[in-house]
Amino acid sequence: MKSYLSEFIGTAMLLAIVAGSGIMGETLDSGNAAIALLGNSIATGAGLYALITLLGPISGAHFNPVVTLMFWKLGYLDLKKMLGYCLCQFAGALCGIWLTHLMFSLPIIQESTKVRAGLGIWLSEFMSTLVLLSVIHIGDKEVKDRVPMLVALTVTAGYWFTSSTFFANPAVALARSFTNTFVGIAPSNVLGFVTAEVLAALVMIGIFSFSKQKS
Amino acid sequence: MKSYLSEFIGTAMLLAIVAGSGIMGETLDSGNAAIALLGNSIATGAGLYALITLLGPISGAHFNPVVTLMFWKLGYLDLKKMLGYCLCQFAGALCGIWLTHLMFSLPIIQESTKVRAGLGIWLSEFMSTLVLLSVIHIGDKEVKDRVPMLVALTVTAGYWFTSSTFFANPAVALARSFTNTFVGIAPSNVLGFVTAEVLAALVMIGIFSFSKQKS
Amino acid sequence: MKSYLSEFIGTAMLLAIVAGSGIMGETLDSGNAAIALLGNSIATGAGLYALITLLGPISGAHFNPVVTLMFWKLGYLDLKKMLGYCLCQFAGALCGIWLTHLMFSLPIIQESTKVRAGLGIWLSEFMSTLVLLSVIHIGDKEVKDRVPMLVALTVTAGYWFTSSTFFANPAVALARSFTNTFVGIAPSNVLGFVTAEVLAALVMIGIFSFSKQKS
Amino acid sequence: MKSYLSEFIGTAMLLAIVAGSGIMGETLDSGNAAIALLGNSIATGAGLYALITLLGPISGAHFNPVVTLMFWKLGYLDLKKMLGYCLCQFAGALCGIWLTHLMFSLPIIQESTKVRAGLGIWLSEFMSTLVLLSVIHIGDKEVKDRVPMLVALTVTAGYWFTSSTFFANPAVALARSFTNTFVGIAPSNVLGFVTAEVLAALVMIGIFSFSKQKS
Repeated sequence: MKSYLSEFIGTAMLLAIVAGSGIMGETLDSGNAAIALLGNSIATGAGLYALITLLGPISGAHFNPVVTLMFWKLGYLDLKKMLGYCLCQFAGALCGIWLTHLMFSLPIIQESTKVRAGLGIWLSEFMSTLVLLSVIHIGDKEVKDRVPMLVALTVTAGYWFTSSTFFANPAVALARSFTNTFVGIAPSNVLGFVTAEVLAALVMIGIFSFSKQKS
Repeated sequence: MKSYLSEFIGTAMLLAIVAGSGIMGETLDSGNAAIALLGNSIATGAGLYALITLLGPISGAHFNPVVTLMFWKLGYLDLKKMLGYCLCQFAGALCGIWLTHLMFSLPIIQESTKVRAGLGIWLSEFMSTLVLLSVIHIGDKEVKDRVPMLVALTVTAGYWFTSSTFFANPAVALARSFTNTFVGIAPSNVLGFVTAEVLAALVMIGIFSFSKQKS
Repeated sequence: MKSYLSEFIGTAMLLAIVAGSGIMGETLDSGNAAIALLGNSIATGAGLYALITLLGPISGAHFNPVVTLMFWKLGYLDLKKMLGYCLCQFAGALCGIWLTHLMFSLPIIQESTKVRAGLGIWLSEFMSTLVLLSVIHIGDKEVKDRVPMLVALTVTAGYWFTSSTFFANPAVALARSFTNTFVGIAPSNVLGFVTAEVLAALVMIGIFSFSKQKS
Repeated sequence: MKSYLSEFIGTAMLLAIVAGSGIMGETLDSGNAAIALLGNSIATGAGLYALITLLGPISGAHFNPVVTLMFWKLGYLDLKKMLGYCLCQFAGALCGIWLTHLMFSLPIIQESTKVRAGLGIWLSEFMSTLVLLSVIHIGDKEVKDRVPMLVALTVTAGYWFTSSTFFANPAVALARSFTNTFVGIAPSNVLGFVTAEVLAALVMIGIFSFSKQKS
């Protein structure tokens, strides 16, 4: 029970940080989106460090259905917990967006119009997910106490070096279609993102299963 | 005695960092408040890391009446110390603002005209305090040596993802009404902030007391 | 085998981070290259922390022919491994640039037109390499578990305080001539950079060999 | 001998980072000094972390005559070493400025015209030095392995929250009068800074001597 709550709260807070800092940047800066992205990426990394440090010991701090999928296929979770985690993550992500809209006195229900599509973007999203899952899985096995800093800095860098700005998370992608602000994504573009993310997850699961069998 | 001095100096320095970096950002940047907030949030996080690392062992490094209130209700402080801490925090916060005005050659006594009010802002301030108290209390119990980094990064992120910019501290809220600069808050808006902060503190005290009884 | 793969992937990711974050900054900001450099330097440092933490235990996380050259001359690698590492680094660097172009939907094959030459620049590049090799070698001997943070912060600072923006890496210099974006360098200027880098490496190898003999 | 070299090189590198990142920011940004200060403060903090981590075990990583003065009065250094350290720091600081001018192809010998004076500025410089010496001395006694991060983040914050931008170092103040760039200070203003710094040092030496006797 406590672990489900942890995934719900953690994913909600993650989305509040992602969307809220995007709104703040977009509102304050006068037409220079690079500064908004700087605030957005630093805030997301900083927030993730706190969330993973505090909630990691409770639920593993996945906050991400493809992370949960990977750990399930690698035998760390049973089917029931996997499904429960995913449900909490999607619900939490949506609640995080709504909470942010409330805090910034914006209409609660929104639909993004920001186009994020194309071969480059999908490749970027595929790569982002490969990177995130590698960092989480290898970090978890080799340097467990550094995982909060590792993931935080990976995401901060990811916002900058990928053309898709490193969603790497189906719950995040879906929830961000519900906000027509800096971090939004048009609903019709969500499927492309999620497909790229799931494909990357399958590749990583294949690689990690293979290397586990060998060792 | 040493612990009271630590709370006084720590809160004074905290306010000097918050207000001073706001003034610096506002003075230097040419009309792009996002950059001022970036400097403000990075400086505050960096300064908090140092303050909490050095003064934590002496007084617990509360610098915040609702933190002191929470630790008192949870049995970590007696009534006398709680009242003394709060007094030192309010006095320190005000002195920090005045010191900053002196350093920047501004009029010592000021009154902010910046409006910070509305349902969204109050909700934001309520959430900010929930987050800060959770991070401090759980961090303190589970990962004590990481508390300075945890609180620093939480506040850096908080400046960006909340519409109220994460005061989460009645002494800070009151003192910031005495500076008509980047971080000011109109005196008539202080009550709304403090109410939201105290309500959040009561909620967290309830939750932590309950989970303590259960375990 | 695994160590060669680690050098290939690590160098490719390093170049993707360097070039991708440069493109992102240049695209988003409206004519203020200082913000692009800020994003570029923060992303590179953050990414390097993750890469060195995760790949350090596998291959040493050199990602840099002059680092490999230094460790070979100091007796940590044999000739075959040194040559293999260098090959993987050059190949990885180029692939990282191409991957970035794909992600940002830019022409794959490009040639930079950015002039980076002159006595000041070459001196800067010589100094950058002295600094990087000192940090890596002394860090490796004295504070091994802090090397990821050390190198990350050195490079973030280096982007700002050197006129050549701290390439300090022949594979990086060559690969960056293949991208006509923020981080590019005209092909005719690569030789100057590589010469400065190799000279610095020879100086450091001399110093470290001498101090090793003495002790 | 090695410790003198460490103080010379460390102070030279410190000044190269301070001055170089200032020049870079000023050159790249289009009239928004807040961004230049952001790059300047992040680079200085990042560079200090590396310098203190690597050179701390060799010489204590003072890089600052008032730090050396304090440790001498508290009995950690003898008179000869104190004088030698100070000499190396002043010489290193000047060489660092000249190296930076060479790297950026600027005239080697310059004289700053930037006015930094007034009661507010001197108070700020007095406070900066109080803070720096407290952080170094208390950090050194209580949390030695965190001193590099502590000093780095204190200085990053200090650039933002003090009107004098936290020189807190007579060797830095003097050397910065030799560069007419972002971080310069007019030669006629150096005496005011150094006086404020030395007064603060005397206050801290008094306090620490007293608290040492008592315990």
